[in-house]
Amino acid sequence: MNWQDTLKNIGKMAKLASYKMAKATTAQKNEALSFMAQAIRERRDAILEANRIDVEAAKKMGLPGAKLDRLTLSDKVMNEMIAGIEEVIKLPDPVGEITKMWIRPNGLKVGRMRIPLGVIAIIYESRPNVTVDASILCIKAGNAVILRGGSEAFHSNKALCDVIRESLEKAGLPSDAVQVVPTTDRSAVLELLKMEEEVDVVIPRGGEELIRFVTEHARMPVLKHYKGVCHVYVDDEADLEKAEKICFNAKVQRPGVCNAMETLLVHKDIADKFLPRMADIFKKAGVELRGCDRTRKIIDCLPATEEDWYAEYLDLILAVKIVDSMDEAIDHIHRYGSSHTEAIVTENYTKSWRFLEEVQSSLVLVNASTRLNDGYQLGLGAEIGISTSKIHAFGPMGLEELTTTKFIAIGNGQLRT
Amino acid sequence: MNWQDTLKNIGKMAKLASYKMAKATTAQKNEALSFMAQAIRERRDAILEANRIDVEAAKKMGLPGAKLDRLTLSDKVMNEMIAGIEEVIKLPDPVGEITKMWIRPNGLKVGRMRIPLGVIAIIYESRPNVTVDASILCIKAGNAVILRGGSEAFHSNKALCDVIRESLEKAGLPSDAVQVVPTTDRSAVLELLKMEEEVDVVIPRGGEELIRFVTEHARMPVLKHYKGVCHVYVDDEADLEKAEKICFNAKVQRPGVCNAMETLLVHKDIADKFLPRMADIFKKAGVELRGCDRTRKIIDCLPATEEDWYAEYLDLILAVKIVDSMDEAIDHIHRYGSSHTEAIVTENYTKSWRFLEEVQSSLVLVNASTRLNDGYQLGLGAEIGISTSKIHAFGPMGLEELTTTKFIAIGNGQLRT
Repeated sequence: MNWQDTLKNIGKMAKLASYKMAKATTAQKNEALSFMAQAIRERRDAILEANRIDVEAAKKMGLPGAKLDRLTLSDKVMNEMIAGIEEVIKLPDPVGEITKMWIRPNGLKVGRMRIPLGVIAIIYESRPNVTVDASILCIKAGNAVILRGGSEAFHSNKALCDVIRESLEKAGLPSDAVQVVPTTDRSAVLELLKMEEEVDVVIPRGGEELIRFVTEHARMPVLKHYKGVCHVYVDDEADLEKAEKICFNAKVQRPGVCNAMETLLVHKDIADKFLPRMADIFKKAGVELRGCDRTRKIIDCLPATEEDWYAEYLDLILAVKIVDSMDEAIDHIHRYGSSHTEAIVTENYTKSWRFLEEVQSSLVLVNASTRLNDGYQLGLGAEIGISTSKIHAFGPMGLEELTTTKFIAIGNGQLRT
Repeated sequence: MNWQDTLKNIGKMAKLASYKMAKATTAQKNEALSFMAQAIRERRDAILEANRIDVEAAKKMGLPGAKLDRLTLSDKVMNEMIAGIEEVIKLPDPVGEITKMWIRPNGLKVGRMRIPLGVIAIIYESRPNVTVDASILCIKAGNAVILRGGSEAFHSNKALCDVIRESLEKAGLPSDAVQVVPTTDRSAVLELLKMEEEVDVVIPRGGEELIRFVTEHARMPVLKHYKGVCHVYVDDEADLEKAEKICFNAKVQRPGVCNAMETLLVHKDIADKFLPRMADIFKKAGVELRGCDRTRKIIDCLPATEEDWYAEYLDLILAVKIVDSMDEAIDHIHRYGSSHTEAIVTENYTKSWRFLEEVQSSLVLVNASTRLNDGYQLGLGAEIGISTSKIHAFGPMGLEELTTTKFIAIGNGQLRT
């Protein structure tokens, strides 16, 4: 059997499993998740052993340290995995909810009912814990999932997937609701991306190169978790003490992630007062500043080039620009930003609402840190990623975002006339 | 300037216009629509003249009659266009609605706010009235739109687009919110489909070949309006009088459209009683029946082959199958159907709800005709098409389906800890 046939077969099995998953009860799905937590606890050693094989091979291949780190399953990561499963068991099941219902003049009752998306393909890189984290959310939302992890995590993913499949079966659910693409061959991904009949949506999780590849080749909708060039705009009517704390948190609390601030926009009328204080705090924290010409007249820092406004540093580096007005700040955000997360710091009522309404990003905040763009922080209970695709789910994706709605109509003989 | 640059430029203008459209007030958008209705009334002759040029050229090219029909703007079509604009003016504006709001333990108020999708590309075939029908919905929902109509309707589309752009400008809105791709070259479509930075979503409206082309090449999400292989399942506990009327309406009222019934599934226990009556009525209406072996033991008809179960006839032809149970009917629907529209006729409470919940199609009906799957019939007030993409919008797409939601967060200094 060639890859094309193998993949097609996986797709067909996933489709069949998806119909069974769609009608699974919440109790059944929770039972499968409980079995999974138990099995991971019991088979911890075997899973760590499979992971050790991957890590050894990766070391020999000369995988860089950061990637090796993400590949390694520690006891801590394993515990988080189990805790994650227990959290998802507690979350409400979104499937079957009737979100609206209305009556037509002819008496037809029309409603919208929440249903699973169907078959979700997840294409990810080194982290083997994504195998479990993504699967449990897809399962709880009644979907079937096809996983294609990084080749370097092959044995780890296989061991985890075996546990998941056994747990599904033990709960009376189809084990094919979770399948791993059984090859490290990249052409297999290409085949998968052509299967628009079997796969309803694909979610790539990884670096820019992976996302570009998936976007270019996928025939089904892609929910992208793309880069975050996040902004904080400090207005002339900001409470500068709040502004300081928010900017510091947004940049320094965890600089290597997508919701960290990358560009600071400051209103010209408070720049003289705000920037020196802020620069001082940032410099103490080791943040490198790159400013526009006007900024450099106030504080001592490197010059920012045009590329800096587009940059997602993921590091202790910050671009700083002085603007004449909130409108200029918003124009800058729309021009250079990535529609991820933007915040305004202001005490002005009108500007706070204008900013909330006019900025077209996945999360827009007033007087709060960009670091709060996260499914847990915003109260979704879980997160499979933060979508920057302006369709279906824009922003953090929890269980509800792994569903869609269909229309239902309850009649007593209504016809089209 | 080559096509690539021209298209890229159109995309950039559309993106800029989309930010202005996103903050346009309802009054402004409605004003633009009023100007449009007025201008189409006043310039009816010029528009009909432009259309006459297209029709003459198409005749010379030997365009088939049905396509010629769709290309021709009659007085009736023009009146419907104007009436359509007046209807959309009356519809509520979806933009800005806060659909949910909750408070986090740290006091952060988190909500979801409805925003336009951004830039929508619409790729369609001969009907020039789509230029107006699609534009007005996109405009009312605050989007910018890039139109690429069929080459045979080039002059008609240009004349209509001019009217739309002038009306936008007269209302103080950016005329670039509606642009027509200024070429009949197919490679221009290919360029457009690569512009995932500028175009948020693409909606193809036309035949299977067009949809396949767009799906294969688009790098942005595609909202497909694909084929409808719709089913009616007549249960053993059906009211047979209702069943007769529903089946007749679903097949005969307008056979050439996507929500017409293509396959009739009948429970074995009532087949003897139901099928002869139904076959009689269908034969009088000129419907050709193609039945499974068991069907052919009860009524005289052609044999159905495997291909018939997949067929979207769009004609007075119907495939008929006898099934042992509702479960077999549902399995058949999931295996051969196109997730469009399915109905059950039954008086049984449990089966009615199981069918509603288990069938994964864009509209599932109990005791009503499949022909009701339509934005107007279901009460959406307007319709840009019926999406068979199981994401974002599944089923009829009205104004709300041309929007997405972003998260908003209203804080007083909240940080990530």
